Amino acid sequence: MRWSKSHLHTIKEIPADAEIASHQLMIRAGYIKKVAQGIFTYGPLALRAIRKFENIVRHELNSRGAVEVLMPMVQPRELWDESGRWNAMGKSLLKFKNRLEQDFCLGATHEEVVTDYIRRDVKSYRDLPVNLYQIQTKYRDEIRPRFGLLRGREFIMKDAYSFDSDVAGAHRSYRLMFEAYTAIFKSLGVHFVSVRADTGSIGGTMSEEFHILADSGEDALLAAEDGSFAANVEVCPALDVEPPVTNTAQLKEVEKFATPGLKTIDDLSKATGVPKHELVKTLFYSTAEEGSKDVKPVCVLVRGSDEVNPIKLKILLGLNEPPLLLTEKEVREVSGASPGSCGPVGLKIPIYMDNGVFNLKNYIVGANEDGFHLKNVNHNRDYTPTEVADLRVAREGDKNPGGKGVLKSYRGIEVGHIFYLGTKYSKSMHATYLNEKGEPKDIEMGCYGIGISRTIQAVIEQLHDKDGIIWPTAIAPFHVHICVLDPSDTNVTAVADKLYNELQSQGIEVLLDDRNERPGVKFKDADLLGVPYRLNVGSRGLQTNEIEIIERQSKKMEKIKVDGVTAKLRDLLFSHA
Amino acid sequence: MRWSKSHLHTIKEIPADAEIASHQLMIRAGYIKKVAQGIFTYGPLALRAIRKFENIVRHELNSRGAVEVLMPMVQPRELWDESGRWNAMGKSLLKFKNRLEQDFCLGATHEEVVTDYIRRDVKSYRDLPVNLYQIQTKYRDEIRPRFGLLRGREFIMKDAYSFDSDVAGAHRSYRLMFEAYTAIFKSLGVHFVSVRADTGSIGGTMSEEFHILADSGEDALLAAEDGSFAANVEVCPALDVEPPVTNTAQLKEVEKFATPGLKTIDDLSKATGVPKHELVKTLFYSTAEEGSKDVKPVCVLVRGSDEVNPIKLKILLGLNEPPLLLTEKEVREVSGASPGSCGPVGLKIPIYMDNGVFNLKNYIVGANEDGFHLKNVNHNRDYTPTEVADLRVAREGDKNPGGKGVLKSYRGIEVGHIFYLGTKYSKSMHATYLNEKGEPKDIEMGCYGIGISRTIQAVIEQLHDKDGIIWPTAIAPFHVHICVLDPSDTNVTAVADKLYNELQSQGIEVLLDDRNERPGVKFKDADLLGVPYRLNVGSRGLQTNEIEIIERQSKKMEKIKVDGVTAKLRDLLFSHA
Repeated sequence: MRWSKSHLHTIKEIPADAEIASHQLMIRAGYIKKVAQGIFTYGPLALRAIRKFENIVRHELNSRGAVEVLMPMVQPRELWDESGRWNAMGKSLLKFKNRLEQDFCLGATHEEVVTDYIRRDVKSYRDLPVNLYQIQTKYRDEIRPRFGLLRGREFIMKDAYSFDSDVAGAHRSYRLMFEAYTAIFKSLGVHFVSVRADTGSIGGTMSEEFHILADSGEDALLAAEDGSFAANVEVCPALDVEPPVTNTAQLKEVEKFATPGLKTIDDLSKATGVPKHELVKTLFYSTAEEGSKDVKPVCVLVRGSDEVNPIKLKILLGLNEPPLLLTEKEVREVSGASPGSCGPVGLKIPIYMDNGVFNLKNYIVGANEDGFHLKNVNHNRDYTPTEVADLRVAREGDKNPGGKGVLKSYRGIEVGHIFYLGTKYSKSMHATYLNEKGEPKDIEMGCYGIGISRTIQAVIEQLHDKDGIIWPTAIAPFHVHICVLDPSDTNVTAVADKLYNELQSQGIEVLLDDRNERPGVKFKDADLLGVPYRLNVGSRGLQTNEIEIIERQSKKMEKIKVDGVTAKLRDLLFSHA
Repeated sequence: MRWSKSHLHTIKEIPADAEIASHQLMIRAGYIKKVAQGIFTYGPLALRAIRKFENIVRHELNSRGAVEVLMPMVQPRELWDESGRWNAMGKSLLKFKNRLEQDFCLGATHEEVVTDYIRRDVKSYRDLPVNLYQIQTKYRDEIRPRFGLLRGREFIMKDAYSFDSDVAGAHRSYRLMFEAYTAIFKSLGVHFVSVRADTGSIGGTMSEEFHILADSGEDALLAAEDGSFAANVEVCPALDVEPPVTNTAQLKEVEKFATPGLKTIDDLSKATGVPKHELVKTLFYSTAEEGSKDVKPVCVLVRGSDEVNPIKLKILLGLNEPPLLLTEKEVREVSGASPGSCGPVGLKIPIYMDNGVFNLKNYIVGANEDGFHLKNVNHNRDYTPTEVADLRVAREGDKNPGGKGVLKSYRGIEVGHIFYLGTKYSKSMHATYLNEKGEPKDIEMGCYGIGISRTIQAVIEQLHDKDGIIWPTAIAPFHVHICVLDPSDTNVTAVADKLYNELQSQGIEVLLDDRNERPGVKFKDADLLGVPYRLNVGSRGLQTNEIEIIERQSKKMEKIKVDGVTAKLRDLLFSHA
């Protein structure tokens, strides 16, 4: 591609609304341009990177027997009513009426459409297994789009759906997709990790995420350094390094004491001299479904040094969404006091206790009376917990639930997510097959997503320096960036053109900067765009028949003879493929 | 691709809502499945055909310097307000509000988005010309979707947009796209024609359509057999074969006569004995814009044997949409009589006369009084036409406006459309550049569409027989369809598998029908699917080491030795490429 004919324009200024490096770099390099909040046009170079990544994905899926189809973005309400998600999905599912006043939505995911697609034809166990995928534009009505392609409204996604006749088959399909995803992200040449994850509104019982690691990643991950375990903090089991020892202290009498103006655990710890991990925090959540008027409050107890993980609570209670904290007013209605003075004693609602509290004795909790606490409180004497479970947020330094050592924390950008769905959709949508005995059975399903456009930016978030992007070869928009240093020297342009054509004839993709600009401008732009190898073709070098070749990542420069350039680049680019 | 693992299912029954052959065949062959009216899922084979066509399009555009980008499907109202089309586009533009109550639409076309994209960076004449294109999913809220992919709501389209600094440049860009389109449709191997066309709601002043010819096509085309001229009937100049001769008859006195019960031109011709082409039809149209309460009536006169072409009237009067006929009640308000008894004499509204009427003298028209007509009427004596112009529908047998001979009529399916837009969008959206003198100028634009999904079905509409589809090799989902006739014979499956792998290693794409079905079922399905070459691999043939190769189009069968199959197919498929 010749720069002069391709409407490529870079920007010096950092755009005001771009908070992280990858977003800033994509805008500055002209890879994307904002059309509306969370909605972008992909420029020619971004599109080339996207297409390359799509083809990597295709290759790994096709070689594992998945079959590509293309489903619509505009989907009729009827299918979503069948699965029950028309109402369950909330406002991120964009709904509208067509000119005939019929209800439609913009597809944010395709479980309903694909289940409808296969149920029409699958009749017997002989028609299974099937794995269908698509690479398609989706829309999710994010309330606050940010970080460019990382949290956009319109995005490109690969979504695959597996259909099996039994659980063992579904697990095989799931495993196969896990292998495909591992191969896909390996071929990108980035640091990534797969972690246990929550199943969210998709449903199902087994789920892993793939993250590209980056300090600015939105997701907190915990992983053992020996690779034996990794999980999103949302679902990571929280195990204390010190195993709980039985506290043999004698139970003392409950005493009420005044704590005027003490509102936080920090206040209380300071005033009483009791360390935070020996205090007990009392929190209240609403377990009512979205839109319900009823509050359905529950109480949760964790140590003062811990945080409640609402997703663990969601899973424990079998809710669709993580429960929300009660408002101050609701807390008062339930407990009789403001949040700083609440405790479990005397409550008439279910009480869920985190494992970390279980071994405490004679502890302090709020008295459910403003400005007062109780000391020497003990469960199973002063109140009875409904259930004791792992409810706290895990953190770095916790015991590795998968083996030896402790967990280390990472930040990641979620780029892939695989789910074992079971029969959630096949049951509600009547997608059945006849087994070998002729009995109708629900189809076992899995679903598997990769954020295509998101991955492109996540790679940049991991691989960049202060000057710009550092593309891994696998998805670089071009392999080689030729800078014509003296565009008015016909010898220079002739050599550059010859190289441009010769390299392309060898399957090497070239961006030719043929603009009438100073070398400094071209070098800056080349660093910004991030093509793996740059060639400097200039009058001075050609006097000795030499060209400079610069590796973008290391910025190492080497001079080579003109007639050795193609062989050199072929070697650099393809010899390890 | 192995049939058994690819969720391919054919259907025997003709679907009730599929009116034309190509739609029926695509459904029956499992290429598409309806999700909602005008909204389909593309199955694996349809998608392969689509991707091949997309790559043909890409190749021809890239080689002419066009650059691929990808714009969003969800577009903000603000851009459409700038061009004035938010209101002008009517209900086929699907509008909705997002969760923040902001107005958006689903892109049916991208002039606004692309003009916004380039105007941010184009500063000087040195930044032009540019030609940007995308291949993207669009949505048009058709009131009555039909004919499968031919008139769908969601569809795949290639749209390109050229930007030039002057009219000459814009014409060059237009011409280049004309050449690209011609090359694209030529490589499909179908009969197609390019015709002059109306510019519709896109605007602009020069426009050509590309049609794939098919008897069931929605568009009526007229073309000279020598190739010197072709046009959509909507804009085809209507020239009588007999040149008008001056009618030298003496003007006679106007006479009113009773015509009770005569309502149509046929009635009148029969009753008076005057041939229809010597009678004059009086029609009334409203030139008010859509939604206006005012009628703004005009009168149009054509010969009794002709039909008014509302698009010619639209162009003559500079309207946005073709004008609509007045209702019977409105006609009475304007003329004082019912439509069967109207005429131009005494009207107070503009009167537009078709060329064909100009040379008539002493003719009969309605008296604007129910049950009466006038005879011996003459224009410029009894009434004065506002303008005389070409206003009738052209037809087969009319004189060729581009050279010798007469026009012949065809039916076509519009698959491509190119427009010279001028500055319609750049002016309203302030897309300017500085010329060599530093003066700001509006950018000259063109836009160029190809219906990708539509083309696939249009090809089938032209190329099929009673048994199924006959794919041209260029976009066939596979090159070769292997039917395993005896799937329980391990020698047969071994040979079939070997051929399957060997052919694929030579770049030949193979569908392997490995199902446990009878040969008859497989042959029927192969004919339905329409892959260019079929191989029958069976026990009997292998006794003499022979395989049958059948060409889908001619159904000619030839027996060849197993080890000659690959060379034979390579020769058939690629030797003329």
